[in-house]
Amino acid sequence: MTEELLKTGERIDQLFANDIKIIQNRDVFSYSIDSVLLSRFPRLPSRGLIVDLCSGNGAVGLFASRNTNAQIVEIEIQERLAEMAQRSIKLNQLEEQVSMICDDLKHLLNHVPRSGVDLILCNPPYFKSTESSKKNMSEHYLLARHEITTNLEEICSISRHGLKSNGRLAMVHRPDRFIEIVDSLRKYGLAPKRIQFVYPKAGKEANMLLIEAIKDGSIEGMKILPPLIVHEENGDYTEDINTIYFGTE
Amino acid sequence: MTEELLKTGERIDQLFANDIKIIQNRDVFSYSIDSVLLSRFPRLPSRGLIVDLCSGNGAVGLFASRNTNAQIVEIEIQERLAEMAQRSIKLNQLEEQVSMICDDLKHLLNHVPRSGVDLILCNPPYFKSTESSKKNMSEHYLLARHEITTNLEEICSISRHGLKSNGRLAMVHRPDRFIEIVDSLRKYGLAPKRIQFVYPKAGKEANMLLIEAIKDGSIEGMKILPPLIVHEENGDYTEDINTIYFGTE
Repeated sequence: MTEELLKTGERIDQLFANDIKIIQNRDVFSYSIDSVLLSRFPRLPSRGLIVDLCSGNGAVGLFASRNTNAQIVEIEIQERLAEMAQRSIKLNQLEEQVSMICDDLKHLLNHVPRSGVDLILCNPPYFKSTESSKKNMSEHYLLARHEITTNLEEICSISRHGLKSNGRLAMVHRPDRFIEIVDSLRKYGLAPKRIQFVYPKAGKEANMLLIEAIKDGSIEGMKILPPLIVHEENGDYTEDINTIYFGTE
Repeated sequence: MTEELLKTGERIDQLFANDIKIIQNRDVFSYSIDSVLLSRFPRLPSRGLIVDLCSGNGAVGLFASRNTNAQIVEIEIQERLAEMAQRSIKLNQLEEQVSMICDDLKHLLNHVPRSGVDLILCNPPYFKSTESSKKNMSEHYLLARHEITTNLEEICSISRHGLKSNGRLAMVHRPDRFIEIVDSLRKYGLAPKRIQFVYPKAGKEANMLLIEAIKDGSIEGMKILPPLIVHEENGDYTEDINTIYFGTE
């Protein structure tokens, strides 16, 4: 059965820490560590409604499904990626819990009730559309990485409309845009509460951040969580990352 | 000579990594790791003018003096602390390079030229004056730790007036006030550029941050420096901290 689900160039990847299988295709899109870290960053509501914005091939929502009974709605604008995600949902027999909608995220409220979402997860495009350095990439990667079909401001705006009061938005992004991220969140009444910086090695600058904001929260009492370091000096994964990828045994 | 410089209850502390001696008195004020880390956080101008605001017993400016030929002006409102600092300056024979002014920092421009400072160092009171939890402490500690005689906004305002264009303010503070710190800096045209979070142990939340802002800089391209972890699991200092305290040998 598995074989029939795959198209040319595709493979199935699996985290050893859980049993979720994700259909990947390097030519089109592959999830990476960003998605894995995002899916485990926020405390997940045990029930209710979770939305995965900019969901790509669906990895974030699929990983999260193992730790919640909430309904999970994934939104992705690219048909090719949404279709891969739909097959991954089927492959994991999660059709009851997880659904994929192929649409522009600005139409989120056509698919979920206004102020009805408990948690929004988002692994957005990191780069401004004006950053042209990497524009010789495939269209799929271009849209996933550059703010062409959406941007930070739109994500914060639609999250405000979708979230319940005290609902949360959890995002992964880049530290060099940190101030802009905090500004956009606050502009839409989303108060940053928990931030974790991710460092490639112990002596290196952070190259990723995880941030959680609460709708209508106060800006007081923000926490900077323990540093997450990905690699040892010799290039191996650190114990923290091994636990995330391979489980605690 | 050394003995004559000390009053009752005072002792002389010295970092092994340099030869600066600091007169301390636990009943009044002692510098701690915050001051040590702040003094080595920014790149010091090789010449010109450095100001140490909220300088207490003068530790930050005195430590910095070993790595620059710039003139260093220290400002402290508490007479008792300023007087200790004056004796430390003499003890280290740094009267030519370092001077201590006992005054309110809002009068900074009575002592240095407007827009004439290359770098301002500041280890300010961390707590709002409304936080009453620790108000059963001595007056000296109360003023050093709570925003009674000054506050974040005033520090940013006077720094703006004192700094040259492209001059820098380097501050140590607490992560739970991070957003307020960034807001205050930007309100006075000081763009945060380098931030380092300090964690008591590898698995703990940050309890300190070092931040450097540039007058009239842009908010783009902020860097989150490598994490600085103070203690090993067993409570010993980490190698990073040992190097700072005891030198590279």
